[in-house]
Amino acid sequence: MKKRNIASRRNFLKSVTATAIGSTALLSSGCNKIAGNSTCPKRGSVITKGNTILFQGDSITDARRDKKRENHANDSKAFGKGYVYFIASQLLADYPSDNLKIYNRGISGNKVFQLADRWDKDCLALKPDILSILIGVNDIWHTLKGKYDATVEKYEKDYAELLKRTRKELPDVKLVICEPFVLRCGAVNDKWFPEFDKYRAAARKMATDFNAVFVPFQSMFDEAVRQAPANHWAADGVHPTMAGGYLMAHKWLDTVRKCKV
Amino acid sequence: MKKRNIASRRNFLKSVTATAIGSTALLSSGCNKIAGNSTCPKRGSVITKGNTILFQGDSITDARRDKKRENHANDSKAFGKGYVYFIASQLLADYPSDNLKIYNRGISGNKVFQLADRWDKDCLALKPDILSILIGVNDIWHTLKGKYDATVEKYEKDYAELLKRTRKELPDVKLVICEPFVLRCGAVNDKWFPEFDKYRAAARKMATDFNAVFVPFQSMFDEAVRQAPANHWAADGVHPTMAGGYLMAHKWLDTVRKCKV
Repeated sequence: MKKRNIASRRNFLKSVTATAIGSTALLSSGCNKIAGNSTCPKRGSVITKGNTILFQGDSITDARRDKKRENHANDSKAFGKGYVYFIASQLLADYPSDNLKIYNRGISGNKVFQLADRWDKDCLALKPDILSILIGVNDIWHTLKGKYDATVEKYEKDYAELLKRTRKELPDVKLVICEPFVLRCGAVNDKWFPEFDKYRAAARKMATDFNAVFVPFQSMFDEAVRQAPANHWAADGVHPTMAGGYLMAHKWLDTVRKCKV
Repeated sequence: MKKRNIASRRNFLKSVTATAIGSTALLSSGCNKIAGNSTCPKRGSVITKGNTILFQGDSITDARRDKKRENHANDSKAFGKGYVYFIASQLLADYPSDNLKIYNRGISGNKVFQLADRWDKDCLALKPDILSILIGVNDIWHTLKGKYDATVEKYEKDYAELLKRTRKELPDVKLVICEPFVLRCGAVNDKWFPEFDKYRAAARKMATDFNAVFVPFQSMFDEAVRQAPANHWAADGVHPTMAGGYLMAHKWLDTVRKCKV
């Protein structure tokens, strides 16, 4: 895999991503400042020419994608309408000649152990250069509903095993761990807390332990709900609206493109 | 309608749109420079708090939207997956507390006269503050296929009548005229030219005559095909891919948010 940083060598589509209304402060700041609470060991871009990029997770990632088309990279219908669609569209517009191959293999309802069950087919076989995972909300949600029996310890153990297995099979893969998040509306009530915060902390620990970029979605939404009610961003507290999905895509791109691992 | 410029008063989501890879030149330049070939009479933002924004056009605008939900503003399913979905998502993320109401009423296959046929229901009744129109490619395409009998003179006359009627019924509406475009691949061959260029010129004339913001999609795609083959942006030469749709959304936002009419 070529290590050349694609962000530094093209001029054409700088304009594509330069839609800021006013402040340019974020654009010239260092990586830690750019990424906020993100884990971001070094400055640069994770994404390089020819990369295969895989998104994994639950319904938030799935976003009603057409699973019959999941083997087609960069296929509009295979992405659903969530944050992955926004990210993939922007990457394919920003790096049009870089032969990126982008896949979405999120499946609604998945918990960590269900990712593990389908990991050979839905991750390792694709040999991703970049693997982004968002998982965790169902581990606690399904437990609250009495449909599952999770503990944060199990979540962390299962997650660490999955990542160990991934590192073993794909030693060069660049990992992006996304923070599970909820908004306090819809299905999300006081019963979720403080337990849910432990799941978030466990995901952050995974990023640290496995040298992954960490995308802090919860702190992003915590800031967002100061601007508009929670249901503007996620009507049921779990599944983002189009505005919430766009916000996630922005945060993911902002974090991943300016850091490297 | 309040005239306050929403772009100037909020800080939170400056970061949402500030995803530039490098150059900040575009962010500090004047409106004409920002908008390239756009018609852009004054600097500022067209969009203000509480606005109703309507997108009109053909299949490029339609983008397989769920028409049963078309009366629901800001409904994800009602937008399809094209440039309007990207624009609406970003606007709702950038201006979360501004109560924007965004609708898509594009219908596949439409030519100008078909917009006119449904204008009462699909435009005037919604009383948009901002009306964005992208129409023209079917006028020539269906004629080349022998299914219609268009001339550029008819296109211009029909378009002018539609806009006159709109201005009469909605005197304060802010108009955004999008340039029809094609890419030289798929269904688009030499037979389209130079006739198609006259349709583009007619759309530009509409923008000038009716004091509209003009979004120069053709020149944007002309630049894009220097970076990647035409089918990266529009597989059949007419309908944008996800990358092409994203590019259009960026251009629309970049033009409309920095100009006022």
